[in-house]
Amino acid sequence: MKIAGTPYRTIWPLESGAVRVIDQSRLPFELTTLDLATLEDAAHAIKTMVVRGAPLIGATAAYGLALALRADASDRRIEEAARILQATRPTAVNLAWALARVRSAIARLVPAQRFEAAFREAGNICEADVEQCRSIGVHGLDVIRRLAKSPARRVNILTHCNAGWLACVDWGTALAPIYMAHDAGIPVHVWVDETRPRNQGAALTAYELGAHGVPHTVIVDNLGGLLMQRGEVDCVIVGTDRTTACGDVCNKVGTYLKALAANDNDVPFYVALPASTIDWSLERGRDIEIEERSPKEVTDVFGRNAAGEVDRVRVVAEGSAALNLAFDVTPARLVTGLITERGVCPASREGLLGLYPEQRARA
Amino acid sequence: MKIAGTPYRTIWPLESGAVRVIDQSRLPFELTTLDLATLEDAAHAIKTMVVRGAPLIGATAAYGLALALRADASDRRIEEAARILQATRPTAVNLAWALARVRSAIARLVPAQRFEAAFREAGNICEADVEQCRSIGVHGLDVIRRLAKSPARRVNILTHCNAGWLACVDWGTALAPIYMAHDAGIPVHVWVDETRPRNQGAALTAYELGAHGVPHTVIVDNLGGLLMQRGEVDCVIVGTDRTTACGDVCNKVGTYLKALAANDNDVPFYVALPASTIDWSLERGRDIEIEERSPKEVTDVFGRNAAGEVDRVRVVAEGSAALNLAFDVTPARLVTGLITERGVCPASREGLLGLYPEQRARA
Repeated sequence: MKIAGTPYRTIWPLESGAVRVIDQSRLPFELTTLDLATLEDAAHAIKTMVVRGAPLIGATAAYGLALALRADASDRRIEEAARILQATRPTAVNLAWALARVRSAIARLVPAQRFEAAFREAGNICEADVEQCRSIGVHGLDVIRRLAKSPARRVNILTHCNAGWLACVDWGTALAPIYMAHDAGIPVHVWVDETRPRNQGAALTAYELGAHGVPHTVIVDNLGGLLMQRGEVDCVIVGTDRTTACGDVCNKVGTYLKALAANDNDVPFYVALPASTIDWSLERGRDIEIEERSPKEVTDVFGRNAAGEVDRVRVVAEGSAALNLAFDVTPARLVTGLITERGVCPASREGLLGLYPEQRARA
Repeated sequence: MKIAGTPYRTIWPLESGAVRVIDQSRLPFELTTLDLATLEDAAHAIKTMVVRGAPLIGATAAYGLALALRADASDRRIEEAARILQATRPTAVNLAWALARVRSAIARLVPAQRFEAAFREAGNICEADVEQCRSIGVHGLDVIRRLAKSPARRVNILTHCNAGWLACVDWGTALAPIYMAHDAGIPVHVWVDETRPRNQGAALTAYELGAHGVPHTVIVDNLGGLLMQRGEVDCVIVGTDRTTACGDVCNKVGTYLKALAANDNDVPFYVALPASTIDWSLERGRDIEIEERSPKEVTDVFGRNAAGEVDRVRVVAEGSAALNLAFDVTPARLVTGLITERGVCPASREGLLGLYPEQRARA
């Protein structure tokens, strides 16, 4: 998408054979890029959250593996590089998947051909991600179009966390339909949940929507219910980290509360996702183990102080404990529809199997 | 309640004829008190939020009016002092009520008797508030006692915002039953919603519970739903700024989302309130006008930095707008019961009239 008129991706190859990424650890306060020329550069970028978001982590790891093979493409080096990259964010599913995909693409090649093939495959992974997000956008655009009753009235969409292009290579998942609607001239306006504790909404979603020129307003996570009571939300679109075979959705903590409010106020609640987030082996969302993160993310808030420096301040009374669980589960009964790269379906086993009939054999 | 073993109130008279208050603008980072010796001192304390919370604002204004009359207790001086105090927080209902009560107590006295009578009446206002909160605590204690199935299992109570003794003179409203349960040896543990945007939960509720020794954990406002899904919340108790004659509850924004989650998970949801918050002239909560506050409260977060100084940091992307509506409305259908100074009743017209039969004539 665009930043102040210039088209960007989160990651792209350079002619030098290195890879350039947007340094997201400095967003929203500063737009800078970082060049990754070695395995170590890539591993460090993932570990320090210069890049974040499952698809982007996968893409960066794929390039990292390729970069590792430039000087030495032996089997041993592949093994070592994959191990180093895998250890950067042990729980990221896309990371393991991307590494396996690159390894499989070069498995039968002689070492001399491996670097180039790996680099090409990392590029393919990026293109596939862009195409998948674009398809989600096209199907989600239909949803928004139906809500856009008159060209004079804006469509108000609420989103939680960051499921935008900064988490992917381009377009995003939940934000892809919004960018498409905006670019198509449909007057959209986005209510951006700040998304405590890590404020990905206030920082990243607000930044990327603003940079592309999409009208939006940041709100505290507490406000969405009132806005729905007042008829100021036409639909909710969020992403998902994991979707069960029955359509339960595990997404950033607080999503469930918005789904309840949407349900109570007859506001359609959509979840945008690529098929890769569907866990066909899992029936019920409540069986998903929820990641517990550092209480520091709750007690301390990052931002820019009056001097222009990024600083952290403690907001919780000294001596008080905090609990930080990162996700919650929205049961399928609260989800109006799943927006996938193959189309929109009900959040149910039958709905999902209708779009992914190849999974029937398994079911 | 206690701070590190010492009993405190938020406001108390000194032998010197001045009044001492806890300086809440420095909490939770520092416990200091401030002496109010003049009308100007009292007005400044209210305006700068050294004191906050409707009951405490009323009590401080009452003392402020008394202090104004020490040197000059003429009718003109009363008029002037009331005007100055009223202007400090124009929307606070208790402020006007407390000023009227003091004026009525001294109306028929000659000027020479007025200072002493006004000071005494301010003290009466404080005692009445303490007694009212204590009664709410006694009735709420019954609710908690019923949930305390075994002495070995703690009762987990979730609260939102600060409806504790720091907002009143002592005890608080929503927290009064919790203090009583704790003091009675019932093992209670409180989930404290941080309560964005102003973080009254993370700062004040966590501080006062910690100071009195009540076990508690601060959570982001997004987390309560998941905790209820997991059975880790036995009941919710919140305060209210305004309650309609039918039992709709207008409280700090985000309360409605917790009520929805409680309802979805069969968790009892109680609202604690003194009768003064009931607006008998209002039927439906959705007719309540919601206060819009500065977007700065959303974009900028206050806390203590590594150097130990209280500082503010901006968390929202530069250039993004924010909307800050301070309250929302929880419909009576989501409220299990209202805990008042006269007892617990259903959140309905009949429920309220059962406790306040003197209002039947009006209905």
